[in-house]
Amino acid sequence: MADKKSDIQEKVKRQGEIVRKLKAEKADIEKITQEVNKLLELKSQLGDEAPQKFTLKTPKGTRDYGPQQMAVRNRVLEKIITVFKRHGAETIDTPVFELKEVLTGKYGEDSKLIYDLADQGGEILSLRYDLTVPFARYLAMNKISNVKRYQIAKVYRRDNPAMTKGRYREFYQCDFDIAGQYDPMIPDAECVRVAVEILSSLDIGNFMVKVNHRRLLDGLFEACGIPSQSFRTACSSVDKLDKSPWEEVRAEMVGEKQLNPDAVDKVGEYVRLHGDAELADKLIADPKFDVTYLFPGETPNHVENSTDGPVSVGSVAGGGRYDNLVGMFDSKGKQVPCVGISIGVERIFSILEAKLANEKANSALLRTTEIEAYVASAQKNLLPERMKLCRELWDAGVKVETSYKQNPKLLAQLQYCEERGIPFALVLGEAEIAQGVVKLREVSSRKEEDIPRANLAEEIRKRLQS
Amino acid sequence: MADKKSDIQEKVKRQGEIVRKLKAEKADIEKITQEVNKLLELKSQLGDEAPQKFTLKTPKGTRDYGPQQMAVRNRVLEKIITVFKRHGAETIDTPVFELKEVLTGKYGEDSKLIYDLADQGGEILSLRYDLTVPFARYLAMNKISNVKRYQIAKVYRRDNPAMTKGRYREFYQCDFDIAGQYDPMIPDAECVRVAVEILSSLDIGNFMVKVNHRRLLDGLFEACGIPSQSFRTACSSVDKLDKSPWEEVRAEMVGEKQLNPDAVDKVGEYVRLHGDAELADKLIADPKFDVTYLFPGETPNHVENSTDGPVSVGSVAGGGRYDNLVGMFDSKGKQVPCVGISIGVERIFSILEAKLANEKANSALLRTTEIEAYVASAQKNLLPERMKLCRELWDAGVKVETSYKQNPKLLAQLQYCEERGIPFALVLGEAEIAQGVVKLREVSSRKEEDIPRANLAEEIRKRLQS
Repeated sequence: MADKKSDIQEKVKRQGEIVRKLKAEKADIEKITQEVNKLLELKSQLGDEAPQKFTLKTPKGTRDYGPQQMAVRNRVLEKIITVFKRHGAETIDTPVFELKEVLTGKYGEDSKLIYDLADQGGEILSLRYDLTVPFARYLAMNKISNVKRYQIAKVYRRDNPAMTKGRYREFYQCDFDIAGQYDPMIPDAECVRVAVEILSSLDIGNFMVKVNHRRLLDGLFEACGIPSQSFRTACSSVDKLDKSPWEEVRAEMVGEKQLNPDAVDKVGEYVRLHGDAELADKLIADPKFDVTYLFPGETPNHVENSTDGPVSVGSVAGGGRYDNLVGMFDSKGKQVPCVGISIGVERIFSILEAKLANEKANSALLRTTEIEAYVASAQKNLLPERMKLCRELWDAGVKVETSYKQNPKLLAQLQYCEERGIPFALVLGEAEIAQGVVKLREVSSRKEEDIPRANLAEEIRKRLQS
Repeated sequence: MADKKSDIQEKVKRQGEIVRKLKAEKADIEKITQEVNKLLELKSQLGDEAPQKFTLKTPKGTRDYGPQQMAVRNRVLEKIITVFKRHGAETIDTPVFELKEVLTGKYGEDSKLIYDLADQGGEILSLRYDLTVPFARYLAMNKISNVKRYQIAKVYRRDNPAMTKGRYREFYQCDFDIAGQYDPMIPDAECVRVAVEILSSLDIGNFMVKVNHRRLLDGLFEACGIPSQSFRTACSSVDKLDKSPWEEVRAEMVGEKQLNPDAVDKVGEYVRLHGDAELADKLIADPKFDVTYLFPGETPNHVENSTDGPVSVGSVAGGGRYDNLVGMFDSKGKQVPCVGISIGVERIFSILEAKLANEKANSALLRTTEIEAYVASAQKNLLPERMKLCRELWDAGVKVETSYKQNPKLLAQLQYCEERGIPFALVLGEAEIAQGVVKLREVSSRKEEDIPRANLAEEIRKRLQS
């Protein structure tokens, strides 16, 4: 074994000399490449000791998006942006990192999940953990007291990733926030509406919207007879209903927290309704509550949890008010009340990628380019002519490409069009060039027709529209 | 001074107690906020010792983009993407950070400009320095031997920023690359064409394309009588022509580098032509060179340097071949030859922002939202009606908004429309509601017309088109 390794090391040494000699002689580049490849092959046999050994992976909790995944992703983001724009949001962008002190003290015990940059001299920086804190810093820094803005960008959390469920360390947030002092609940209602429009437009199946409001919950506690000094602790118990059954929550409230069992049971009657239309009706009918519904017809009949369909992914959106955050950045503590929602698209990508994989088995090609026509040639030595035609069509705004080979085979060119779903092939030969025409081939039907070159761009556009 | 400080500290303490008491009592939130603000005001008087003192800035060499800047930026990026798509490029995305070892050894002495992440346990990571190395890693990792891809994303360099000139530590690169073994110069020529199309479409004034090729330069050296072992050193001298006059470069070549003065003077005849059409003609006419021009008509009459106009910004694009990079990531050293171009948009943003500032003085409003109509009301207590109308129009896909106030003044609502360039105001009053109509007001002309509510969305769309 040791002998064999030293043999290879000797070979590597000799091959290295060959390469160096060729380079010094300015030898033909193909020859050099050939010898370099031999050298690398030898080195790779050395296993762990090979200096060129790389870990070919993306960092833990991150992923590349290939062309197909980008096509899915861009479709989702475009739909989300359409909704944000329909509601008149402006957009801003902030750096991927912030001064560490900007993030400090904003995330409680989740602070341990923040990625810090190395201290390389100069400022101490951290990657953004969400888009909300940078937005608040932006508002305070620019003394902006009202704005409706959306922002779509990646955020970073050193969490334990569960990538099959769409949980990553680098992931997108799509945020819509309304900053400003307005009449109560009006911006809040629009945020819920925006979430519903987005989730409805995304074709991800059923979802449920859970609406809550601290004051509503406090009012409910009060009506049920929980004393005001126990609101906070009662709230933290009720929060556990997402994960635990009512019985456990009740036991904690009456046991550990020593709340009145009758009052707790009354609370149980409401919170177990889980925010469906029944609760809305009950609250409206109940004389103890004064509830005004905004954006009428938008009763909370759905938001936030996909519970059936091919993939169930849990929460895909969340939001709420943060009225004190901007003031933390203002030297005089000037407050700018804010409310917003955040859509987590990675989980939506997971759903749609799973759907796509299902559909693909049946049929449809997901195109990853928008090429409208492919310039092909039936004969040799027509590269300059192919390029000339490309140039004419690019100038006319048509999306075209041609082979990068000097003399590609016609069959290979036509196959490429079929594989890639390119609608038209434009076949050029000596005869067509002489007559000033191009053979326009509809790839799906294989029908061909000669088109005068001057009309070509218009003809392609016309056919694409119909 | 010391006395005064202790006075304030005493006041802070007392005010703190007031706030805590109110919170414990669950007092009215407005009351609490008022007292918290008093407390923060007091604390701010303590100066440096105030715990809430933040540095309100973005990290060195970075910037926020406000809504106006985003409008400029998105317009630029859309034009660039249009060109990339016209040439059939797919798009991919890679994480903002890579394993440090992926970047190591790829950037020579520029490696010191790489941002490292802190070692918080786990992998050692660095922020990407460009998009080329991650792209090569992606190709090798997925064993992709040919692809035409574009990628638009931010990269990070701990350089000395010159932000007024559009040089940042966080900045966009817009890359177009062709990977694959093809016939020589064909993908290269398309990259030049793509750069020209982009710079032509961006309305940034004149620019110059400098085309070079190592083999062309080597051929030129050979033809001029420079010995082959001196090609590399001659090349590094000629590279300095960007910054130094020919006389200095010549002095270095014949002095320090001891090259034959006659040969150097011959080189000087060519390289001082600076890549204009004259050089192209000279090379074509010169029997020593065998130059084939691709994408005919695309003689290098322009690329890469904006030299006149209101702002001159130097290089805005660059590119070239990197045939050995992918092989560095492949365990067997398998090569994938690549060529690409990179557009630096920050400098283009600088030009366009300067232009915009000029134009703004004269006229035109740069809209930062796409709102088509604003739902206004002439009377009190119509919030639910305004919201209902918004909902109808959102459902019909119309981009509308309404005031977040319960009872906004009509004049304020109409002024908002004028300031924001919203085309239509939709005025609702008791009378309109009773008649099932909406008063459609064209904001620019102030002409008003009653429109039946059922036709409203269509009427807005029709008017926007004409």
